[in-house]
Amino acid sequence: MQFHKSNVYFYPMIKVVVLGAGNVGTHLCRSLEANPEVLLLQNYNRKGESISDCNVEVTYNLANIAAADVYIVTYNDNALVEASEQLARLRGLVVHTSGATSINVFSTLKNYGVFYPVQSFKKELAVNFLEVPIAIEANTDSNKNILLNLAKSISNLTYQINSKQRSALHVSAVFANNFSNFMYTQSQNICKDYGIDFDILKPLIKETINKLDVSDPENIQTGPAIRKDSKTIERHKILLKKEAQKELYNTLTQAIQKYYEKEL
Amino acid sequence: MQFHKSNVYFYPMIKVVVLGAGNVGTHLCRSLEANPEVLLLQNYNRKGESISDCNVEVTYNLANIAAADVYIVTYNDNALVEASEQLARLRGLVVHTSGATSINVFSTLKNYGVFYPVQSFKKELAVNFLEVPIAIEANTDSNKNILLNLAKSISNLTYQINSKQRSALHVSAVFANNFSNFMYTQSQNICKDYGIDFDILKPLIKETINKLDVSDPENIQTGPAIRKDSKTIERHKILLKKEAQKELYNTLTQAIQKYYEKEL
Repeated sequence: MQFHKSNVYFYPMIKVVVLGAGNVGTHLCRSLEANPEVLLLQNYNRKGESISDCNVEVTYNLANIAAADVYIVTYNDNALVEASEQLARLRGLVVHTSGATSINVFSTLKNYGVFYPVQSFKKELAVNFLEVPIAIEANTDSNKNILLNLAKSISNLTYQINSKQRSALHVSAVFANNFSNFMYTQSQNICKDYGIDFDILKPLIKETINKLDVSDPENIQTGPAIRKDSKTIERHKILLKKEAQKELYNTLTQAIQKYYEKEL
Repeated sequence: MQFHKSNVYFYPMIKVVVLGAGNVGTHLCRSLEANPEVLLLQNYNRKGESISDCNVEVTYNLANIAAADVYIVTYNDNALVEASEQLARLRGLVVHTSGATSINVFSTLKNYGVFYPVQSFKKELAVNFLEVPIAIEANTDSNKNILLNLAKSISNLTYQINSKQRSALHVSAVFANNFSNFMYTQSQNICKDYGIDFDILKPLIKETINKLDVSDPENIQTGPAIRKDSKTIERHKILLKKEAQKELYNTLTQAIQKYYEKEL
């Protein structure tokens, strides 16, 4: 649809309702309200709480939800099945924002999809949505185009991935975030055991991450494991004061060595 | 020492010779040359190669090494014992830059210590030395003061740690850098297995690291392991295509669960 008026084309703004007022819902409302290509009609949340730092109209009454092009459901994973029943009467495109949930949770609806911002959000912390990757999926090509336009209007990083890929992305993020964070915990504990300020390692940690912009992690692996520096490895194990630390050190050292022998 | 002239005090600049022209030696020369509190007299390296992006005088002849206050030896760990013999005739303070080597490698000298920049360097990549932590150690208090002044003249982040602590810092860095980098390799491989662009995860990885500035990693652990979300854990294991990935996933999931049960 486009309207012609003298020689300027006007595209109608895409009308959006956001459901849920948690971390994702709040940040989406703030970003969409400021977006000139989007008309943010409403936020629905059970308590009818207003959205902090956002003037969007709020309703707590499902019967009052406005007619929109896209409904973005930011509920917890467990609440999405129920949401599909609540929203059955809506005509627009209904999408969820969950990384862990299949598109099929909404398959009883006519128009449905996924609009997944790949970032962790906290209401209190500002987010630059232009740098938040958005992964979309939809039940038809035309719905996919709607979501792609919406995603591109708020982020420079848009991706199309299916539900299987999104599940795999979730496991992948467990390694990239949860497991690596646990390594930082171990690192800090070793520092504590020896009265060392963990801050001393932070510039080095940041440099390791910066390298990911220019190199694959596989190609920048360093340390005694990949060097097979058994003298250093033995010295390190003696320094570790807790049995579980030694076990982790052993397991990961062996896994690295096997990996680079191409056995993994 | 200070010289009085009318009512202005003049401190003599600290005279430094850097030995070695590798990554650390090159960056130290560049930083010290630009430092108004330091007089960089010379670089010694076996081949007499000039230092890129630095105009320091270079010698390949040990007999020609200039008389300095501090000699910074940036050789590989294995070459430090030999260096202590080569440098026995020098009167100044001789320090190495190795994170993995005890101060005692230089104990046959009169004045010795350690000047360890806690960062990974590449000649080709610019470094802002003000943000590189420098960990120092010396055989006497007055030598410690010399190193502390030198360190403070090039970096905002100076630390005093002994050789035992420096060894522990090295193990700690294995967890923080080598092991976490291996987690990124696994993460990227899972993405490859499912045709997902690894770039989609990089903003999330950076956010995890940014959180370390305001929170201890122990307090920001998330994911199915700490939630004991066994349904998600089982689904994840099915998605992992390689046996070694499943083993790592199991081991780390169990280690996280034990840790937060305070058994670690």
